[in-house]
Amino acid sequence: MTDCQGNGEGSNSPMELYEKLNAQGDIVRSLKTAKAEKTEIDAAVQLLLKLKTDYKQVTGQDYKAGCPPSENVVASDNGPALDGADGEDTVDPWNVATTNAKGVDYDKLIVRFGSSKIDKELVDRVEKVSGQKPHRFLRRGIFFSHRDMHQVLDAYEKHKSFYLYTGRGPSSEAMHVGHLIPFIFTKWLQDVFDIPLVIQLTDDEKYLWKDLTLEECHRFAVENAKDIIACGFDVNKTFIFSDLDYMGASPEFYRNVVKIQKHVTFNQVKGIFGFTDSDCIGKISFPAIQAAPSFSNSFPQIFGGRKDVQCLIPCAIDQDPYFRMTRDVAPRIGYPKPALLHSTFFPALQGAQTKMSASDANSSIFLTDTPKQIKNKVNKHAFSGGKDTVEEHRKHGGNPDVDVSFMYLTFFLEDDEQLEKIRQDYASGALLTGELKKILIETLQPMIAQHQERRKLVTEEMVQQFMTPRPLNFKL
Amino acid sequence: MTDCQGNGEGSNSPMELYEKLNAQGDIVRSLKTAKAEKTEIDAAVQLLLKLKTDYKQVTGQDYKAGCPPSENVVASDNGPALDGADGEDTVDPWNVATTNAKGVDYDKLIVRFGSSKIDKELVDRVEKVSGQKPHRFLRRGIFFSHRDMHQVLDAYEKHKSFYLYTGRGPSSEAMHVGHLIPFIFTKWLQDVFDIPLVIQLTDDEKYLWKDLTLEECHRFAVENAKDIIACGFDVNKTFIFSDLDYMGASPEFYRNVVKIQKHVTFNQVKGIFGFTDSDCIGKISFPAIQAAPSFSNSFPQIFGGRKDVQCLIPCAIDQDPYFRMTRDVAPRIGYPKPALLHSTFFPALQGAQTKMSASDANSSIFLTDTPKQIKNKVNKHAFSGGKDTVEEHRKHGGNPDVDVSFMYLTFFLEDDEQLEKIRQDYASGALLTGELKKILIETLQPMIAQHQERRKLVTEEMVQQFMTPRPLNFKL
Repeated sequence: MTDCQGNGEGSNSPMELYEKLNAQGDIVRSLKTAKAEKTEIDAAVQLLLKLKTDYKQVTGQDYKAGCPPSENVVASDNGPALDGADGEDTVDPWNVATTNAKGVDYDKLIVRFGSSKIDKELVDRVEKVSGQKPHRFLRRGIFFSHRDMHQVLDAYEKHKSFYLYTGRGPSSEAMHVGHLIPFIFTKWLQDVFDIPLVIQLTDDEKYLWKDLTLEECHRFAVENAKDIIACGFDVNKTFIFSDLDYMGASPEFYRNVVKIQKHVTFNQVKGIFGFTDSDCIGKISFPAIQAAPSFSNSFPQIFGGRKDVQCLIPCAIDQDPYFRMTRDVAPRIGYPKPALLHSTFFPALQGAQTKMSASDANSSIFLTDTPKQIKNKVNKHAFSGGKDTVEEHRKHGGNPDVDVSFMYLTFFLEDDEQLEKIRQDYASGALLTGELKKILIETLQPMIAQHQERRKLVTEEMVQQFMTPRPLNFKL
Repeated sequence: MTDCQGNGEGSNSPMELYEKLNAQGDIVRSLKTAKAEKTEIDAAVQLLLKLKTDYKQVTGQDYKAGCPPSENVVASDNGPALDGADGEDTVDPWNVATTNAKGVDYDKLIVRFGSSKIDKELVDRVEKVSGQKPHRFLRRGIFFSHRDMHQVLDAYEKHKSFYLYTGRGPSSEAMHVGHLIPFIFTKWLQDVFDIPLVIQLTDDEKYLWKDLTLEECHRFAVENAKDIIACGFDVNKTFIFSDLDYMGASPEFYRNVVKIQKHVTFNQVKGIFGFTDSDCIGKISFPAIQAAPSFSNSFPQIFGGRKDVQCLIPCAIDQDPYFRMTRDVAPRIGYPKPALLHSTFFPALQGAQTKMSASDANSSIFLTDTPKQIKNKVNKHAFSGGKDTVEEHRKHGGNPDVDVSFMYLTFFLEDDEQLEKIRQDYASGALLTGELKKILIETLQPMIAQHQERRKLVTEEMVQQFMTPRPLNFKL
């Protein structure tokens, strides 16, 4: 575990320091027991003391054997619930806001959340271990942050496999292209690592947070499942579940929920999620339900009661608070911590200051849009980084960093060289905004049309099959 | 509903006043629409204004059409969580304490909780409607308080039946005689009304509150179920369930839990149960799980999805906070409010100041005690209301009101005349403490022995049968 987040910069997570301290304490004790030379013991004690100082600096707490650091120590100081003041970006599961046209400052977010950057070394390692060219989302920093991904790869290299967990909150029937990001990437991970996947549809959460009935939320879950299935997941390796169904179909899942709920206080969820005394008790206890799929014994039909299968969660960074909480609880209930891969946000057509909204039809490209709607939306609403007149644009060039059409292409255009050429041409002024938009339209139209074709082929029986608790086909 | 809590004293509950106000408002509007005589309209308006004044007096709030009063308006002012100060008894699901040797002041509790006294009129009515002599627990005021019992009987007379719900928190394998009180009474209700019964074993609650594992709590639930079955319940009319099992076996149950959780805030459970920010989120959301069995569609296998079957809950008065909350939520989620029958507490051998504790072997008679253990415990530990010497006792008499042996006989001795004679003889001094204890010992010994015999006959298969969700045999 020592090199799990090592990136050569000498920085240590609280947990890494804690484990180093445990190990160093053992060394000091065994040296003393073995009556080693005084100089050797002194050196070991010096290192122990230095580690204790580092630990206090990083966690703000004294090291205490047997008491691992809380990950939320970091979060509660700098956590999302308290953000938004002094020009910081706001990022939590319900709010994403920034004043910067380029979008959220993700490097700052890594520091604030205490996660690790997905650097070139990690991307290269994924390529080496999987034997596949890294997905464009990795190559381009769209998945930009992680927790414990090196540990997952270490184990995988030793033939110890893992499983994937991702999800969606089904707040409406309509999904937009941004909603596909985690699923496109998760499908790639499933394909290259050949591993099982569970997909949680939090219809209970949407019922608790929105002015919707249980029946509506459950119907949205089933409708969204069709779009997810249309991404091409392997039915033999994928279990999709609605919380409203699965909670009432799996005593093991509920047992894990209760275990988590016993180990998280209101004070903690208040710090992590910003809940208040006026929030309903359903919201307050919900985080445990999003946490539970991180533990393999929540799915006995898949893992046969094994609680030690490592979980990897690809998700947008706004979901991290749930999993910081989960990772904090995991060791206290005897489970491995889930690893994470975090993505940036998919920008709204109007610009990268906000996350897209499923309730504003013009804020995004929907999976149900016609080619004509796509063309109109991009031409009319996609925020441009170009200059006001053709002359000025030719002379000074456009700004691809704030241009939404260019941003969309970084998500969906597969060819790296073509993308780079577009970037340069737009920046130089050789490529006009209208031309850039045309490239995007011609990228999105077939992509969406193909999605619609695949979705048409998704039958009720297939949905039923994906959503039935059953064994999956894989080797661990 | 107008006469549901009427006891001829002219007092009205907030909800009754609210409903009278709604009706009176309708009358005023229709008189105006029909252009009735001015004097008639004026009289109706006067009554409306008087009702509004009464409503404000009772609830402390202004009447507002469409906003029914919260039952917790009463509870949050005087609720159990805030008690114990200024000499008041403390009564909540986790604490019962009084400084009075006669036990809790139940008349005061009725006023504080806003429930209704089970008076002679109600006992007579139960006799008339059921055609059976009322159970000794009713005749002797052991079940002393109710909510909406008249409404249940009104409907029953019109051939609209109801179902029973009671439960137990399985905190240990051992049950004592006090734990049997709700079950003895519930069995009687099941027999005389011929109705279905659900029994909740809150193993999840015990896991959340106690230093126990999930496995231990679940095992205690199954062991306790055996003692409950030994009370003689009809397997064709009774469903016993562990929360840890049933939550994961019934999507309908979980849906009701989430519905309730959406309609109760942390502020509310704080006021009702005294939770704090340091409590785990499992405790905070648990009340919804104890509430859910109050609604018939939590049991589709029994009621086929009907949500309108009235529920009657016999329980000790300390459980009332859960059901005040439940009754508050019910109309907001479209369900009928459960009716309640409340019992007094079964006193500890050491005296009526405290509720019995399953963890102190000498505080009570356990269902596993031998005849010799019963004899020794009563003789050694049962608090006596007798005088210090035989001479003084003969001269001044004993005090049956604080004598635990006499209290126990009021629970278990069936013959009213014999009990009254014992009371008089003890008070006069004709009956000595040793003699009184002997009568109790001779009452308890065969009762416990018979229970042990019946429990021996309870097989794992029978437990399995009682605990399997399935249709029950009854007519509604």
